[in-house]
Amino acid sequence: MKKIQRYKRELDVSYALGASLTFELVKRHPEWVTRIFLSSSADLSEGMIKLKDLFEEHRVWVETNDKAFNILSPKGNCFVIGEFKKTSFSLEKYSHIVLANPSDAGNLGTIIRTAVGFGITDIAIIKPAVDFYNPAVIRASMGAAFHVRVEYFDTIEDYTSKFPDNERYAFMLSASIAITDVIVKEPFSLIFGNEAAGLPDEYMSFCTPVVIKHTDKIDSLNLPMAVGIAVYEFTKKLGCVF
Amino acid sequence: MKKIQRYKRELDVSYALGASLTFELVKRHPEWVTRIFLSSSADLSEGMIKLKDLFEEHRVWVETNDKAFNILSPKGNCFVIGEFKKTSFSLEKYSHIVLANPSDAGNLGTIIRTAVGFGITDIAIIKPAVDFYNPAVIRASMGAAFHVRVEYFDTIEDYTSKFPDNERYAFMLSASIAITDVIVKEPFSLIFGNEAAGLPDEYMSFCTPVVIKHTDKIDSLNLPMAVGIAVYEFTKKLGCVF
Repeated sequence: MKKIQRYKRELDVSYALGASLTFELVKRHPEWVTRIFLSSSADLSEGMIKLKDLFEEHRVWVETNDKAFNILSPKGNCFVIGEFKKTSFSLEKYSHIVLANPSDAGNLGTIIRTAVGFGITDIAIIKPAVDFYNPAVIRASMGAAFHVRVEYFDTIEDYTSKFPDNERYAFMLSASIAITDVIVKEPFSLIFGNEAAGLPDEYMSFCTPVVIKHTDKIDSLNLPMAVGIAVYEFTKKLGCVF
Repeated sequence: MKKIQRYKRELDVSYALGASLTFELVKRHPEWVTRIFLSSSADLSEGMIKLKDLFEEHRVWVETNDKAFNILSPKGNCFVIGEFKKTSFSLEKYSHIVLANPSDAGNLGTIIRTAVGFGITDIAIIKPAVDFYNPAVIRASMGAAFHVRVEYFDTIEDYTSKFPDNERYAFMLSASIAITDVIVKEPFSLIFGNEAAGLPDEYMSFCTPVVIKHTDKIDSLNLPMAVGIAVYEFTKKLGCVF
């Protein structure tokens, strides 16, 4: 039997911690699931019965294994864990969110949740960056992580050479074009910098620089908020109906 | 000399942890400051010299006190702490954000940061709720907490009786009016429920129910995101320029 290890980037599996995340995982990607761990203290609530039915339907391997919880969820408020195989994605020519060097797992999860909420399911990430498969990302996404394709690129040039024809909008505080005035063309790439540093000025030379204007009482919006407002506004301008 | 205690709701002081928060505190509300703690390992960086000049200008009490850091910031990546007296606010008849039973400190801080970014500085909170003066709220607000007035109410009725003439917009998933179609009247109250439960249906009877539509691949937007998009859209509809 395969060893259970604390999550590390190098592993070829990751974990959905908790019943609702595991439910999303099995429902959306049963083919990814390698095994399900149940805590011996998991009760037979209505939710748990629904979950077990789903496991049966998809014939996923389920085992009661308290050791898994000690290793993977030491804080202990979780009774189901879904182990799943990581997948590599290759983005296609749709509209994308492009995150240059995002560093915070919770932020990445929140961005994914919001993006999926507004119909954007393709995310490009420029390295170095937080690991998409970190269980903290999966958890903060509230399961939306199972609805996206994420491709990592070594540099922004690697990304732009793969998608030369996407309309590139770079969100930066020094931009002169307000988001309210942008003319949106598809497919688009909405590009955002790192939490602390934002995007460097050179992005202006190959992107339309866009700013979400705010008062001078704050230095900036936080990163998920900027991405969320941008995706909301862009899809609204295109007349997307959800 | 007054004892230094770990923060508790009952205390009449709270703490700005770190140099940039303390800077915002002293700049914005020097009259609130009771004392400043410096760590003996605080260096003489440019930022620190600027900070000391500000302390001198406002004649605030500064002491080197490593014990304060052990108690208030045990993780230890902070070299300046500003202690300040809590203030009670009484909101006036402006536009407000109304949060019914928010429970998460980080979320409240992010909401405050975004609200201030879009010019809303009056926040009503319906109890039970997280404590605005919790240092985790102040920190997540990135200092925007020093730009807002926050008033707590025991019930939503207490709030509506104080502000009977505000236009009330209740954000709820079951609403039929899309935010894009709302006609905005001022002063307004943008009302949001708790992170887990949202607003109960009875809000429909005394508010205009509004929904930020999203795909069915997510259950909901997270609370700060919903508030941020709402404040962005409402102030945009009013033609606010920042």
